[in-house]
Amino acid sequence: VAGGQRDAEKSPQHSKTNRSHRLTVSYLGTGFSGLQIQPGKRTVQGELEKALQQIWGFRISAQPSGRTDTGVHALAQIVSFDAPPKHSAAVLVRALNHNLPHDVRILNARLTAKPFHARFDAKGKTYEYRVLNRPVADPFLLDRALHMPRPLDVTAMRKAARLLVGKHDFASFTSNPGYERETTVRTIRRLSIVQRGPLLVFTVSADGFLYRMVRNIVGALLKIGRGHLDQDGFKKAFHARRRSAAPETAPAHGLYLKQVRY
Amino acid sequence: VAGGQRDAEKSPQHSKTNRSHRLTVSYLGTGFSGLQIQPGKRTVQGELEKALQQIWGFRISAQPSGRTDTGVHALAQIVSFDAPPKHSAAVLVRALNHNLPHDVRILNARLTAKPFHARFDAKGKTYEYRVLNRPVADPFLLDRALHMPRPLDVTAMRKAARLLVGKHDFASFTSNPGYERETTVRTIRRLSIVQRGPLLVFTVSADGFLYRMVRNIVGALLKIGRGHLDQDGFKKAFHARRRSAAPETAPAHGLYLKQVRY
Repeated sequence: VAGGQRDAEKSPQHSKTNRSHRLTVSYLGTGFSGLQIQPGKRTVQGELEKALQQIWGFRISAQPSGRTDTGVHALAQIVSFDAPPKHSAAVLVRALNHNLPHDVRILNARLTAKPFHARFDAKGKTYEYRVLNRPVADPFLLDRALHMPRPLDVTAMRKAARLLVGKHDFASFTSNPGYERETTVRTIRRLSIVQRGPLLVFTVSADGFLYRMVRNIVGALLKIGRGHLDQDGFKKAFHARRRSAAPETAPAHGLYLKQVRY
Repeated sequence: VAGGQRDAEKSPQHSKTNRSHRLTVSYLGTGFSGLQIQPGKRTVQGELEKALQQIWGFRISAQPSGRTDTGVHALAQIVSFDAPPKHSAAVLVRALNHNLPHDVRILNARLTAKPFHARFDAKGKTYEYRVLNRPVADPFLLDRALHMPRPLDVTAMRKAARLLVGKHDFASFTSNPGYERETTVRTIRRLSIVQRGPLLVFTVSADGFLYRMVRNIVGALLKIGRGHLDQDGFKKAFHARRRSAAPETAPAHGLYLKQVRY
Protein backbone atom coordinates (compact mmCIF):
# COMPACT_ATOMS: atom_id res chain seq x y z
CA VAL A 1 0.00 0.00 0.00
CA ALA A 2 2.73 2.43 0.98
CA GLY A 3 5.12 1.04 -1.65
CA GLY A 4 4.91 4.16 -3.81
CA GLN A 5 6.53 6.24 -1.08
CA ARG A 6 9.60 4.08 -1.08
CA ASP A 7 11.96 6.03 -3.32
CA ALA A 8 11.19 9.41 -1.78
CA GLU A 9 11.78 8.24 1.79
CA LYS A 10 14.64 5.83 1.10
CA SER A 11 17.24 6.03 3.82
CA PRO A 12 20.16 8.29 2.91
CA GLN A 13 22.40 5.83 4.81
CA HIS A 14 21.88 3.16 2.18
CA SER A 15 25.12 2.78 0.24
CA LYS A 16 27.47 0.11 -1.05
CA THR A 17 29.31 -0.20 2.27
CA ASN A 18 26.08 -0.49 4.31
CA ARG A 19 24.03 -3.62 4.86
CA SER A 20 20.33 -3.81 5.74
CA HIS A 21 19.67 -5.25 9.19
CA ARG A 22 16.32 -6.74 10.16
CA LEU A 23 15.39 -7.06 13.85
CA THR A 24 12.45 -8.90 15.42
CA VAL A 25 11.55 -6.92 18.51
CA SER A 26 9.18 -7.72 21.39
CA TYR A 27 8.10 -5.08 23.88
CA LEU A 28 5.73 -4.59 26.76
CA GLY A 29 4.03 -1.32 25.79
CA THR A 30 3.11 -0.28 29.34
CA GLY A 31 6.26 1.70 30.11
CA PHE A 32 6.62 3.42 26.74
CA SER A 33 5.10 6.55 25.22
CA GLY A 34 4.53 4.49 22.11
CA LEU A 35 7.03 3.32 19.55
CA GLN A 36 7.96 6.48 17.64
CA ILE A 37 10.87 8.57 18.91
CA GLN A 38 9.83 11.82 20.67
CA PRO A 39 12.10 14.24 22.52
CA GLY A 40 11.95 13.85 26.30
CA LYS A 41 9.75 10.72 26.13
CA ARG A 42 10.64 7.07 26.73
CA THR A 43 9.89 5.34 23.42
CA VAL A 44 10.80 1.97 21.91
CA GLN A 45 12.48 3.58 18.89
CA GLY A 46 14.39 5.94 21.20
CA GLU A 47 15.73 3.03 23.28
CA LEU A 48 16.61 1.05 20.14
CA GLU A 49 18.50 3.93 18.55
CA LYS A 50 20.40 4.54 21.81
CA ALA A 51 21.46 0.87 21.85
CA LEU A 52 22.47 1.01 18.16
CA GLN A 53 24.54 4.13 18.80
CA GLN A 54 26.33 2.38 21.70
CA ILE A 55 27.33 -0.42 19.35
CA TRP A 56 28.18 1.52 16.17
CA GLY A 57 29.41 4.74 17.77
CA PHE A 58 27.24 7.00 15.60
CA ARG A 59 23.54 7.72 15.20
CA ILE A 60 21.56 5.14 13.22
CA SER A 61 17.93 5.60 12.29
CA ALA A 62 15.82 2.48 13.02
CA GLN A 63 12.66 2.05 10.94
CA PRO A 64 9.76 0.02 12.37
CA SER A 65 7.12 -1.71 10.20
CA GLY A 66 4.73 0.86 11.62
CA ARG A 67 4.03 2.86 14.76
CA THR A 68 2.28 1.52 17.82
CA ASP A 69 0.51 3.85 20.27
CA THR A 70 1.28 4.32 23.98
CA GLY A 71 0.42 1.12 25.87
CA VAL A 72 0.23 -1.12 22.76
CA HIS A 73 2.41 -4.25 22.95
CA ALA A 74 4.44 -6.11 20.34
CA LEU A 75 5.09 -9.84 20.24
CA ALA A 76 7.12 -9.49 17.05
CA GLN A 77 7.59 -5.99 15.66
CA ILE A 78 10.01 -5.74 12.74
CA VAL A 79 12.58 -2.93 12.69
CA SER A 80 15.17 -2.29 9.98
CA PHE A 81 18.27 -0.14 9.70
CA ASP A 82 21.17 0.26 7.35
CA ALA A 83 24.71 0.26 8.74
CA PRO A 84 28.16 -1.10 7.96
CA PRO A 85 28.22 -4.77 9.04
CA LYS A 86 29.86 -4.98 12.47
CA HIS A 87 28.63 -8.14 14.20
CA SER A 88 27.12 -11.47 13.18
CA ALA A 89 23.36 -11.70 13.76
CA ALA A 90 23.83 -13.80 16.94
CA VAL A 91 26.36 -11.39 18.46
CA LEU A 92 24.22 -8.41 17.50
CA VAL A 93 21.19 -9.90 19.33
CA ARG A 94 23.25 -10.29 22.51
CA ALA A 95 24.89 -6.86 22.23
CA LEU A 96 21.59 -5.07 21.66
CA ASN A 97 19.82 -6.90 24.49
CA HIS A 98 22.74 -6.05 26.76
CA ASN A 99 22.23 -2.35 25.97
CA LEU A 100 18.42 -2.32 26.04
CA PRO A 101 16.03 -2.01 29.01
CA HIS A 102 14.34 -5.29 30.02
CA ASP A 103 10.88 -4.37 28.70
CA VAL A 104 12.15 -4.49 25.12
CA ARG A 105 13.98 -7.54 23.73
CA ILE A 106 15.51 -8.37 20.37
CA LEU A 107 14.27 -11.89 19.55
CA ASN A 108 16.13 -12.23 16.31
CA ALA A 109 18.44 -10.34 13.92
CA ARG A 110 19.18 -10.89 10.27
CA LEU A 111 21.57 -9.17 7.85
CA THR A 112 19.83 -9.14 4.49
CA ALA A 113 21.54 -9.51 1.15
CA LYS A 114 19.06 -7.17 -0.56
CA PRO A 115 18.15 -3.71 0.76
CA PHE A 116 15.32 -4.18 3.27
CA HIS A 117 12.94 -1.59 4.72
CA ALA A 118 10.60 -2.76 7.53
CA ARG A 119 7.80 -0.39 6.55
CA PHE A 120 7.94 -0.13 2.76
CA ASP A 121 8.54 -3.85 2.21
CA ALA A 122 5.72 -5.01 4.54
CA LYS A 123 3.02 -7.03 2.71
CA GLY A 124 0.66 -7.40 5.65
CA LYS A 125 0.30 -7.58 9.41
CA THR A 126 -1.49 -9.50 12.11
CA TYR A 127 -2.72 -7.92 15.34
CA GLU A 128 -4.23 -9.60 18.38
CA TYR A 129 -6.64 -7.93 20.80
CA ARG A 130 -7.11 -9.60 24.20
CA VAL A 131 -10.22 -9.23 26.34
CA LEU A 132 -10.64 -10.80 29.79
CA ASN A 133 -14.34 -11.62 29.97
CA ARG A 134 -15.18 -12.63 33.54
CA PRO A 135 -16.54 -10.76 36.57
CA VAL A 136 -13.24 -10.36 38.43
CA ALA A 137 -10.10 -8.82 36.91
CA ASP A 138 -6.79 -10.73 36.88
CA PRO A 139 -3.76 -9.01 38.47
CA PHE A 140 -1.55 -10.85 35.96
CA LEU A 141 -3.40 -9.28 33.02
CA LEU A 142 -3.31 -5.73 34.33
CA ASP A 143 -2.32 -3.48 31.35
CA ARG A 144 -2.26 -6.64 29.18
CA ALA A 145 -5.93 -7.30 28.38
CA LEU A 146 -9.12 -5.25 28.40
CA HIS A 147 -11.31 -6.34 31.32
CA MET A 148 -15.00 -6.72 30.43
CA PRO A 149 -16.83 -8.04 33.51
CA ARG A 150 -20.19 -8.87 31.87
CA PRO A 151 -20.71 -11.84 29.50
CA LEU A 152 -20.26 -10.95 25.82
CA ASP A 153 -22.31 -12.39 22.96
CA VAL A 154 -19.51 -14.03 20.99
CA THR A 155 -21.83 -15.42 18.30
CA ALA A 156 -23.14 -11.93 17.49
CA MET A 157 -19.60 -10.51 17.40
CA ARG A 158 -18.48 -13.30 15.04
CA LYS A 159 -21.44 -12.64 12.74
CA ALA A 160 -20.59 -8.92 12.48
CA ALA A 161 -16.89 -9.70 12.05
CA ARG A 162 -17.63 -11.75 8.92
CA LEU A 163 -18.93 -8.56 7.26
CA LEU A 164 -15.45 -7.00 7.51
CA VAL A 165 -13.44 -9.80 5.92
CA GLY A 166 -12.37 -9.01 2.37
CA LYS A 167 -11.59 -5.80 0.48
CA HIS A 168 -13.57 -2.87 1.88
CA ASP A 169 -13.44 0.84 2.60
CA PHE A 170 -12.62 1.05 6.31
CA ALA A 171 -13.02 4.85 6.64
CA SER A 172 -15.46 4.31 9.56
CA PHE A 173 -12.68 2.59 11.46
CA THR A 174 -9.83 5.06 11.21
CA SER A 175 -9.33 7.69 13.88
CA ASN A 176 -7.37 10.11 11.76
CA PRO A 177 -9.58 12.05 9.33
CA GLY A 178 -6.78 14.58 8.69
CA TYR A 179 -4.41 11.80 7.65
CA GLU A 180 -4.67 12.13 3.87
CA ARG A 181 -4.18 8.76 2.19
CA GLU A 182 -4.98 7.95 -1.41
CA THR A 183 -7.41 5.37 -0.12
CA THR A 184 -9.04 3.96 3.01
CA VAL A 185 -9.61 0.63 1.27
CA ARG A 186 -7.87 -2.33 2.89
CA THR A 187 -8.19 -6.09 2.64
CA ILE A 188 -8.81 -8.07 5.82
CA ARG A 189 -7.68 -11.64 5.19
CA ARG A 190 -8.81 -13.02 8.53
CA LEU A 191 -10.77 -11.85 11.57
CA SER A 192 -11.26 -14.54 14.20
CA ILE A 193 -12.53 -14.46 17.77
CA VAL A 194 -11.25 -17.36 19.86
CA GLN A 195 -12.09 -18.17 23.50
CA ARG A 196 -9.22 -19.39 25.64
CA GLY A 197 -10.78 -19.92 29.05
CA PRO A 198 -11.97 -16.49 30.24
CA LEU A 199 -9.83 -14.79 27.58
CA LEU A 200 -11.34 -13.68 24.28
CA VAL A 201 -8.71 -13.23 21.57
CA PHE A 202 -9.49 -11.21 18.44
CA THR A 203 -7.01 -11.85 15.62
CA VAL A 204 -7.00 -9.56 12.60
CA SER A 205 -4.79 -10.02 9.53
CA ALA A 206 -4.78 -7.48 6.72
CA ASP A 207 -2.61 -6.23 3.88
CA GLY A 208 -2.36 -2.95 5.77
CA PHE A 209 -4.07 -1.10 8.60
CA LEU A 210 -5.39 2.44 8.89
CA TYR A 211 -4.58 4.41 12.04
CA ARG A 212 -6.30 2.73 15.05
CA MET A 213 -8.20 0.40 12.71
CA VAL A 214 -7.96 -2.67 14.97
CA ARG A 215 -8.97 -0.81 18.12
CA ASN A 216 -11.87 0.82 16.29
CA ILE A 217 -13.09 -2.51 14.86
CA VAL A 218 -12.78 -4.22 18.27
CA GLY A 219 -14.57 -1.28 19.93
CA ALA A 220 -17.51 -1.73 17.55
CA LEU A 221 -17.58 -5.52 17.92
CA LEU A 222 -17.55 -5.22 21.72
CA LYS A 223 -20.53 -2.89 21.53
CA ILE A 224 -22.36 -5.68 19.69
CA GLY A 225 -21.10 -8.21 22.25
CA ARG A 226 -22.53 -6.10 25.07
CA GLY A 227 -25.88 -5.93 23.30
CA HIS A 228 -25.67 -2.16 22.77
CA LEU A 229 -25.50 -2.35 18.96
CA ASP A 230 -27.29 -4.72 16.58
CA GLN A 231 -26.16 -6.17 13.24
CA ASP A 232 -28.05 -3.53 11.26
CA GLY A 233 -26.56 -0.68 13.29
CA PHE A 234 -23.09 -2.17 12.80
CA LYS A 235 -23.64 -2.50 9.04
CA LYS A 236 -24.83 1.11 8.81
CA ALA A 237 -21.86 2.39 10.82
CA PHE A 238 -19.46 0.41 8.59
CA HIS A 239 -21.03 1.59 5.34
CA ALA A 240 -21.27 5.23 6.47
CA ARG A 241 -17.49 5.54 5.87
CA ARG A 242 -17.29 8.20 8.55
CA ARG A 243 -15.52 7.66 11.88
CA SER A 244 -18.24 9.63 13.69
CA ALA A 245 -20.82 7.01 12.63
CA ALA A 246 -18.99 4.16 14.42
CA PRO A 247 -18.63 3.25 18.14
CA GLU A 248 -15.73 4.23 20.39
CA THR A 249 -12.14 2.97 20.14
CA ALA A 250 -11.12 0.03 22.37
CA PRO A 251 -8.29 0.92 24.81
CA ALA A 252 -4.64 0.47 23.82
CA HIS A 253 -3.56 -2.02 26.49
CA GLY A 254 -5.40 -5.02 24.95
CA LEU A 255 -3.60 -4.68 21.59
CA TYR A 256 -0.59 -6.72 20.43
CA LEU A 257 1.27 -6.49 17.12
CA LYS A 258 1.74 -10.21 16.46
CA GLN A 259 3.34 -10.59 13.04
CA VAL A 260 4.52 -8.64 10.02
CA ARG A 261 4.45 -10.37 6.65
CA TYR A 262 7.05 -9.64 3.90
CA VAL B 1 1.26 -30.30 60.69
CA ALA B 2 0.57 -27.06 62.50
CA GLY B 3 -2.82 -28.30 63.74
CA GLY B 4 -1.65 -28.62 67.36
CA GLN B 5 -1.14 -24.85 67.56
CA ARG B 6 -4.74 -24.18 66.76
CA ASP B 7 -6.27 -23.67 70.22
CA ALA B 8 -3.45 -21.49 71.51
CA GLU B 9 -3.55 -19.12 68.55
CA LYS B 10 -7.31 -19.17 67.96
CA SER B 11 -8.57 -15.75 66.94
CA PRO B 12 -9.96 -13.77 69.88
CA GLN B 13 -12.55 -12.39 67.46
CA HIS B 14 -14.22 -15.76 67.09
CA SER B 15 -17.55 -15.65 68.93
CA LYS B 16 -21.20 -16.52 68.43
CA THR B 17 -21.97 -13.30 66.57
CA ASN B 18 -19.00 -13.67 64.22
CA ARG B 19 -18.82 -15.79 61.09
CA SER B 20 -15.72 -17.19 59.42
CA HIS B 21 -15.05 -15.73 55.99
CA ARG B 22 -12.87 -17.47 53.42
CA LEU B 23 -11.33 -15.48 50.57
CA THR B 24 -9.52 -16.73 47.46
CA VAL B 25 -6.93 -14.08 46.65
CA SER B 26 -4.69 -13.63 43.61
CA TYR B 27 -1.78 -11.20 43.60
CA LEU B 28 1.12 -10.16 41.46
CA GLY B 29 3.96 -10.26 44.01
CA THR B 30 6.18 -7.70 42.22
CA GLY B 31 4.89 -4.58 43.96
CA PHE B 32 4.63 -6.04 47.46
CA SER B 33 7.11 -6.49 50.29
CA GLY B 34 5.68 -9.98 50.69
CA LEU B 35 2.39 -11.02 52.17
CA GLN B 36 2.80 -10.45 55.88
CA ILE B 37 1.87 -7.07 57.32
CA GLN B 38 4.88 -4.86 58.25
CA PRO B 39 4.78 -1.24 59.36
CA GLY B 40 5.67 1.22 56.60
CA LYS B 41 5.77 -1.48 53.90
CA ARG B 42 3.30 -2.26 51.12
CA THR B 43 2.13 -5.82 51.83
CA VAL B 44 -0.78 -7.98 50.64
CA GLN B 45 -2.07 -8.51 54.19
CA GLY B 46 -1.78 -4.77 54.88
CA GLU B 47 -3.84 -3.91 51.80
CA LEU B 48 -6.42 -6.60 52.62
CA GLU B 49 -6.84 -5.43 56.21
CA LYS B 50 -7.22 -1.81 55.03
CA ALA B 51 -10.00 -2.91 52.65
CA LEU B 52 -11.71 -4.95 55.41
CA GLN B 53 -11.58 -1.97 57.76
CA GLN B 54 -13.19 0.24 55.10
CA ILE B 55 -16.08 -2.21 54.87
CA TRP B 56 -16.56 -3.15 58.54
CA GLY B 57 -15.46 0.12 60.13
CA PHE B 58 -13.08 -1.55 62.58
CA ARG B 59 -9.79 -3.45 62.39
CA ILE B 60 -10.07 -7.08 61.32
CA SER B 61 -7.11 -9.45 61.30
CA ALA B 62 -6.86 -11.47 58.06
CA GLN B 63 -5.05 -14.82 58.27
CA PRO B 64 -3.40 -16.24 55.15
CA SER B 65 -2.74 -19.97 54.61
CA GLY B 66 0.92 -19.06 54.92
CA ARG B 67 3.34 -16.25 54.13
CA THR B 68 4.85 -15.58 50.76
CA ASP B 69 8.13 -13.67 50.37
CA THR B 70 8.71 -10.41 48.51
CA GLY B 71 8.22 -10.97 44.77
CA VAL B 72 6.38 -14.31 45.13
CA HIS B 73 3.02 -14.47 43.33
CA ALA B 74 -0.28 -16.12 44.21
CA LEU B 75 -2.80 -17.57 41.76
CA ALA B 76 -5.09 -18.63 44.62
CA GLN B 77 -3.97 -17.78 48.13
CA ILE B 78 -6.56 -18.48 50.85
CA VAL B 79 -7.17 -15.88 53.55
CA SER B 80 -9.64 -16.18 56.44
CA PHE B 81 -11.08 -13.76 58.96
CA ASP B 82 -13.84 -13.73 61.53
CA ALA B 83 -16.34 -10.88 61.54
CA PRO B 84 -20.05 -10.24 61.96
CA PRO B 85 -21.76 -11.11 58.65
CA LYS B 86 -22.30 -7.89 56.71
CA HIS B 87 -22.52 -8.75 53.01
CA SER B 88 -23.32 -11.78 50.89
CA ALA B 89 -20.26 -13.45 49.38
CA ALA B 90 -20.93 -11.90 45.94
CA VAL B 91 -21.31 -8.38 47.32
CA LEU B 92 -18.23 -8.83 49.53
CA VAL B 93 -16.10 -9.78 46.49
CA ARG B 94 -17.16 -6.60 44.69
CA ALA B 95 -16.77 -4.37 47.76
CA LEU B 96 -13.29 -5.70 48.54
CA ASN B 97 -12.09 -5.43 44.94
CA HIS B 98 -13.43 -1.89 44.84
CA ASN B 99 -11.26 -1.03 47.87
CA LEU B 100 -8.13 -2.98 46.87
CA PRO B 101 -5.28 -1.93 44.55
CA HIS B 102 -5.37 -3.61 41.10
CA ASP B 103 -2.42 -5.96 41.72
CA VAL B 104 -4.44 -7.92 44.28
CA ARG B 105 -7.89 -9.34 43.46
CA ILE B 106 -10.44 -11.33 45.43
CA LEU B 107 -11.49 -14.17 43.13
CA ASN B 108 -14.02 -15.68 45.48
CA ALA B 109 -15.51 -15.31 48.97
CA ARG B 110 -17.36 -17.79 51.13
CA LEU B 111 -19.00 -17.47 54.54
CA THR B 112 -18.43 -20.79 56.27
CA ALA B 113 -20.91 -22.48 58.62
CA LYS B 114 -18.11 -23.92 60.76
CA PRO B 115 -15.18 -21.88 62.13
CA PHE B 116 -12.47 -21.78 59.46
CA HIS B 117 -8.81 -20.80 59.75
CA ALA B 118 -6.82 -20.56 56.50
CA ARG B 119 -3.55 -21.64 58.11
CA PHE B 120 -4.51 -24.18 60.76
CA ASP B 121 -7.08 -25.96 58.61
CA ALA B 122 -4.81 -26.29 55.55
CA LYS B 123 -4.16 -29.93 54.58
CA GLY B 124 -1.71 -29.25 51.80
CA LYS B 125 -0.52 -26.82 49.15
CA THR B 126 0.61 -26.68 45.55
CA TYR B 127 3.27 -24.31 44.28
CA GLU B 128 4.39 -23.69 40.73
CA TYR B 129 7.85 -22.45 39.73
CA ARG B 130 8.24 -21.03 36.21
CA VAL B 131 11.50 -20.96 34.28
CA LEU B 132 11.91 -19.43 30.82
CA ASN B 133 14.51 -21.62 29.15
CA ARG B 134 15.59 -19.97 25.92
CA PRO B 135 18.46 -17.67 24.92
CA VAL B 136 16.48 -14.40 24.88
CA ALA B 137 14.34 -13.14 27.77
CA ASP B 138 10.66 -12.30 27.29
CA PRO B 139 9.53 -8.78 28.27
CA PHE B 140 6.10 -10.26 29.13
CA LEU B 141 7.68 -12.62 31.70
CA LEU B 142 9.82 -9.99 33.43
CA ASP B 143 9.40 -10.59 37.19
CA ARG B 144 7.14 -13.56 36.36
CA ALA B 145 9.56 -16.36 35.46
CA LEU B 146 13.23 -17.08 36.08
CA HIS B 147 15.18 -16.64 32.85
CA MET B 148 17.74 -19.39 32.20
CA PRO B 149 19.33 -18.73 28.78
CA ARG B 150 21.21 -22.05 28.38
CA PRO B 151 19.45 -25.37 27.63
CA LEU B 152 18.60 -27.38 30.77
CA ASP B 153 18.76 -31.17 31.05
CA VAL B 154 15.11 -31.86 31.88
CA THR B 155 15.57 -35.64 32.02
CA ALA B 156 18.27 -35.32 34.71
CA MET B 157 16.12 -32.87 36.71
CA ARG B 158 13.13 -35.25 36.53
CA LYS B 159 15.28 -38.16 37.72
CA ALA B 160 16.48 -36.21 40.77
CA ALA B 161 12.96 -34.92 41.45
CA ARG B 162 11.67 -38.49 41.82
CA LEU B 163 13.97 -38.92 44.85
CA LEU B 164 12.05 -36.19 46.70
CA VAL B 165 8.54 -37.55 46.24
CA GLY B 166 7.16 -39.18 49.40
CA LYS B 167 7.76 -38.65 53.12
CA HIS B 168 11.27 -37.34 53.80
CA ASP B 169 13.30 -35.07 56.03
CA PHE B 170 13.69 -31.86 53.97
CA ALA B 171 16.10 -30.11 56.39
CA SER B 172 18.55 -29.53 53.49
CA PHE B 173 15.89 -27.51 51.73
CA THR B 174 14.82 -25.06 54.42
CA SER B 175 16.51 -21.67 54.68
CA ASN B 176 15.64 -21.03 58.31
CA PRO B 177 17.82 -23.00 60.73
CA GLY B 178 16.70 -20.84 63.64
CA TYR B 179 13.05 -21.63 62.92
CA GLU B 180 12.47 -24.34 65.54
CA ARG B 181 9.88 -26.83 64.36
CA GLU B 182 9.18 -30.21 65.88
CA THR B 183 10.10 -31.76 62.59
CA THR B 184 11.49 -31.03 59.14
CA VAL B 185 9.72 -34.09 57.74
CA ARG B 186 7.18 -33.38 55.02
CA THR B 187 5.39 -35.45 52.39
CA ILE B 188 5.68 -34.39 48.75
CA ARG B 189 2.73 -35.89 46.89
CA ARG B 190 3.78 -34.73 43.46
CA LEU B 191 6.74 -33.04 41.81
CA SER B 192 6.42 -32.62 38.07
CA ILE B 193 8.41 -30.71 35.48
CA VAL B 194 6.39 -29.88 32.37
CA GLN B 195 7.57 -28.09 29.22
CA ARG B 196 5.15 -25.56 27.71
CA GLY B 197 7.03 -24.18 24.74
CA PRO B 198 10.11 -22.41 26.11
CA LEU B 199 8.58 -22.41 29.60
CA LEU B 200 9.54 -25.06 32.15
CA VAL B 201 6.95 -25.42 34.89
CA PHE B 202 7.84 -27.14 38.17
CA THR B 203 4.74 -28.15 40.18
CA VAL B 204 5.18 -29.27 43.78
CA SER B 205 2.34 -30.53 46.00
CA ALA B 206 2.96 -31.38 49.65
CA ASP B 207 1.12 -31.69 52.95
CA GLY B 208 3.13 -28.70 54.14
CA PHE B 209 6.22 -26.72 53.19
CA LEU B 210 9.23 -25.58 55.19
CA TYR B 211 10.42 -21.99 54.78
CA ARG B 212 11.71 -21.52 51.19
CA MET B 213 11.41 -25.25 50.52
CA VAL B 214 10.18 -24.93 46.91
CA ARG B 215 12.79 -22.34 45.96
CA ASN B 216 15.55 -24.43 47.55
CA ILE B 217 14.41 -27.61 45.78
CA VAL B 218 14.13 -25.79 42.43
CA GLY B 219 17.57 -24.20 43.00
CA ALA B 220 19.10 -27.66 43.46
CA LEU B 221 17.26 -29.16 40.47
CA LEU B 222 18.34 -26.27 38.23
CA LYS B 223 21.96 -26.92 39.25
CA ILE B 224 21.50 -30.48 37.97
CA GLY B 225 19.79 -29.14 34.83
CA ARG B 226 22.77 -26.88 34.15
CA GLY B 227 25.14 -29.85 34.53
CA HIS B 228 26.81 -28.38 37.63
CA LEU B 229 25.60 -31.13 40.02
CA ASP B 230 25.19 -34.87 39.38
CA GLN B 231 22.63 -37.30 40.80
CA ASP B 232 25.05 -38.52 43.48
CA GLY B 233 25.87 -35.00 44.59
CA PHE B 234 22.16 -34.19 44.75
CA LYS B 235 21.45 -37.33 46.81
CA LYS B 236 24.26 -36.46 49.24
CA ALA B 237 23.03 -32.88 49.64
CA PHE B 238 19.48 -34.12 50.27
CA HIS B 239 20.55 -36.75 52.80
CA ALA B 240 22.93 -34.40 54.64
CA ARG B 241 19.88 -32.69 56.22
CA ARG B 242 21.83 -29.44 56.43
CA ARG B 243 20.96 -26.36 54.37
CA SER B 244 24.68 -25.60 53.91
CA ALA B 245 25.11 -28.91 52.05
CA ALA B 246 22.60 -27.97 49.31
CA PRO B 247 22.77 -25.54 46.36
CA GLU B 248 21.52 -21.94 46.34
CA THR B 249 17.89 -20.82 46.53
CA ALA B 250 16.08 -20.03 43.26
CA PRO B 251 14.89 -16.39 43.03
CA ALA B 252 11.44 -15.39 44.32
CA HIS B 253 9.95 -14.05 41.08
CA GLY B 254 9.45 -17.50 39.46
CA LEU B 255 7.32 -18.80 42.34
CA TYR B 256 3.49 -18.97 42.40
CA LEU B 257 1.25 -20.28 45.20
CA LYS B 258 -1.24 -22.21 43.08
CA GLN B 259 -3.64 -23.98 45.43
CA VAL B 260 -4.34 -24.64 49.10
CA ARG B 261 -6.08 -27.89 50.00
CA TYR B 262 -8.52 -28.17 52.97
